[in-house]
Amino acid sequence: MLGFERGRIHPTAIISQSATLAPDVTIGAHVIVYDNVTLGSETIVGPNSILGEPSASFYTAGGQVNPPLTIGPRALIRSGAIIYGGTTIGSDFECGHRVTIREKAEIGSHCRLGTLDDIQGHCTIGDYARFHSNVHIAQGTVVGKFVWIFPYTTLLNDPQPPSTLNRGPIVEDFAVIATSVVVAAGVRIGRDSFVAARSVVTKDVSPETMVIGSPARPVVRTPDIRSAETGEPMYPWRDHFDRGMPWAGIGYDQWKARQDEMHREEV
Amino acid sequence: MLGFERGRIHPTAIISQSATLAPDVTIGAHVIVYDNVTLGSETIVGPNSILGEPSASFYTAGGQVNPPLTIGPRALIRSGAIIYGGTTIGSDFECGHRVTIREKAEIGSHCRLGTLDDIQGHCTIGDYARFHSNVHIAQGTVVGKFVWIFPYTTLLNDPQPPSTLNRGPIVEDFAVIATSVVVAAGVRIGRDSFVAARSVVTKDVSPETMVIGSPARPVVRTPDIRSAETGEPMYPWRDHFDRGMPWAGIGYDQWKARQDEMHREEV
Amino acid sequence: MLGFERGRIHPTAIISQSATLAPDVTIGAHVIVYDNVTLGSETIVGPNSILGEPSASFYTAGGQVNPPLTIGPRALIRSGAIIYGGTTIGSDFECGHRVTIREKAEIGSHCRLGTLDDIQGHCTIGDYARFHSNVHIAQGTVVGKFVWIFPYTTLLNDPQPPSTLNRGPIVEDFAVIATSVVVAAGVRIGRDSFVAARSVVTKDVSPETMVIGSPARPVVRTPDIRSAETGEPMYPWRDHFDRGMPWAGIGYDQWKARQDEMHREEV
Repeated sequence: MLGFERGRIHPTAIISQSATLAPDVTIGAHVIVYDNVTLGSETIVGPNSILGEPSASFYTAGGQVNPPLTIGPRALIRSGAIIYGGTTIGSDFECGHRVTIREKAEIGSHCRLGTLDDIQGHCTIGDYARFHSNVHIAQGTVVGKFVWIFPYTTLLNDPQPPSTLNRGPIVEDFAVIATSVVVAAGVRIGRDSFVAARSVVTKDVSPETMVIGSPARPVVRTPDIRSAETGEPMYPWRDHFDRGMPWAGIGYDQWKARQDEMHREEV
Repeated sequence: MLGFERGRIHPTAIISQSATLAPDVTIGAHVIVYDNVTLGSETIVGPNSILGEPSASFYTAGGQVNPPLTIGPRALIRSGAIIYGGTTIGSDFECGHRVTIREKAEIGSHCRLGTLDDIQGHCTIGDYARFHSNVHIAQGTVVGKFVWIFPYTTLLNDPQPPSTLNRGPIVEDFAVIATSVVVAAGVRIGRDSFVAARSVVTKDVSPETMVIGSPARPVVRTPDIRSAETGEPMYPWRDHFDRGMPWAGIGYDQWKARQDEMHREEV
Repeated sequence: MLGFERGRIHPTAIISQSATLAPDVTIGAHVIVYDNVTLGSETIVGPNSILGEPSASFYTAGGQVNPPLTIGPRALIRSGAIIYGGTTIGSDFECGHRVTIREKAEIGSHCRLGTLDDIQGHCTIGDYARFHSNVHIAQGTVVGKFVWIFPYTTLLNDPQPPSTLNRGPIVEDFAVIATSVVVAAGVRIGRDSFVAARSVVTKDVSPETMVIGSPARPVVRTPDIRSAETGEPMYPWRDHFDRGMPWAGIGYDQWKARQDEMHREEV
């Protein structure tokens, strides 16, 4: 068998007897699955990944029960991932290579993480979050739904390091944080806002606001940003971009109307 | 056998029957070689590497033929590399640990990539390119020959993310891009130019120009830059630096004259 | 056996006969230990790590003796580390996942490196250094004791790249370098100083000085920095932070007095 074969567990994989795997999972070569891991249906785990990685005390003290790691159905976990015990990931998760996700991360459904992303745990990431490569998320961070974060961007939690303070940033729905941004501890980045590349965000960013610079300052309302090529409005991005989004093919407004209607029926 | 032994394939390596390996290749422990991979003579593949990594549809749909990955002779691929099918790499390639090279990268000869470089594919990289650690190359990028790029520098392709636009930058021959630079989508960086550390390049950079800042602005012509230690001109760097270059020991001008002469003879 | 089991060597590990392992070491799955590696008592090596990685000539020429790698007692090396031969690491070392430490690094005791740190070798790192994720240390760097460096910070050594110059920076004891900083070649960063996030340090930083910006300029003496939350002084940080430090529970002053007394007795 090659590095993986659909629907099979590679003979070189090392799987804990306490793991709960859906019968149709695919597990690649050299994968390690520690205790208390649950994998949903149709999940694919690329070679060399480690699931249910224990925290430090497990190594040093021994004998502890590893906390559960639960990954929902249809995950595509590319090779070299390390995901700790104590974390929960929703359905339809996808990630690039060699991501690290530490303990107590609560990750929604349909999220995508890029190669080498470094999620430090003790954080919340909303549905349909899209992180490109090499995004660093400090403990205590709260990321909303439909948030985009681009490479080498770091969200921090210690206002005056080193200290024992932990003030994770909050990023609201539909916000976009471009490449190589530093988001300082405790900052709130508003819904539909846009943080330009290489900014250092030291103060809250209002909704529908573009900020730029170090320290980042507001420069324009995002609804006023036009495409340099077509002159059309570019934000909110949900009005013109739907790849991988639940409104693909029908548009955000129609999807939202249906969602609202379903919600009323439920109520 | 240890992690590798010259001229041998480690017994723990997992090699597709459709792979074409020169008889003298060295393959380290736990390496995975998927379908349609061709490795040139004297190539060394460090442990834990994955060659011919399939794209997402291979995982999810199954049954596809993986596109070919071709790597020229005398490659030294350090441990933990992930190189996708559909990519071509010339002779005398060398890379650090855990590089990622995605599909449809066209990489020339004598290139060197650093540890953790993240080549997103659908791009061109010229002969003798030198990337240090943690360089991020977006899809659509075109990098010329003899280009240097330093750590944590990112070349981007989406002018107003997220969008469906793809405007990879162009970097011309002999350009140098220092550490932690952001190169915006669609920018052209001219031959023999120098981009200072931590710049954000939002406009084209003229040949023989040093730019600095965010946004980057021209400050000096590169031929006018002097060594702080000797007072000698530092650029074009090919006039005083030859380590690993084809003009090593003879100087660029003599090498170039020979090249031109050979080319005339061929014509 | 799972990915590791305390006090045992995983059957999938590949260990050189010339390695010297304390009898109580723990070695995880798929680990490779090359020639001339010495591991101290109670050391734990996570899965997929490579210890004693050879330099390029070993691969290409073959037959060389790999220089020794020595790691002191009680190290916790998380999965995916690559540590070269020719390096020395003191006692009580701890690191995150997938660190790279090249040859001729001299690393003190009680040091902690973060996930994906990239130590380029030929450098010195003092006791109790604390590097967060994705720190890049160029060859020639000298880092003192009790130094903190935060993510995506790079220390450089070539003032006019590419050149054959090698001017590693010097970072003195107790200095703090925040996130995404670039430290230029040859710079000295003084004791008890603080470099703010996203700065570019191009000139020496005096002791007890906070610098910020690009290029970084002094803005305040660190003893004058107050907590935004309590109004108390935040630096020197040793007066209020002791997690993992030798003065934990007793305070720096009392610890230092004891150290000085012990030193007098020794003399």
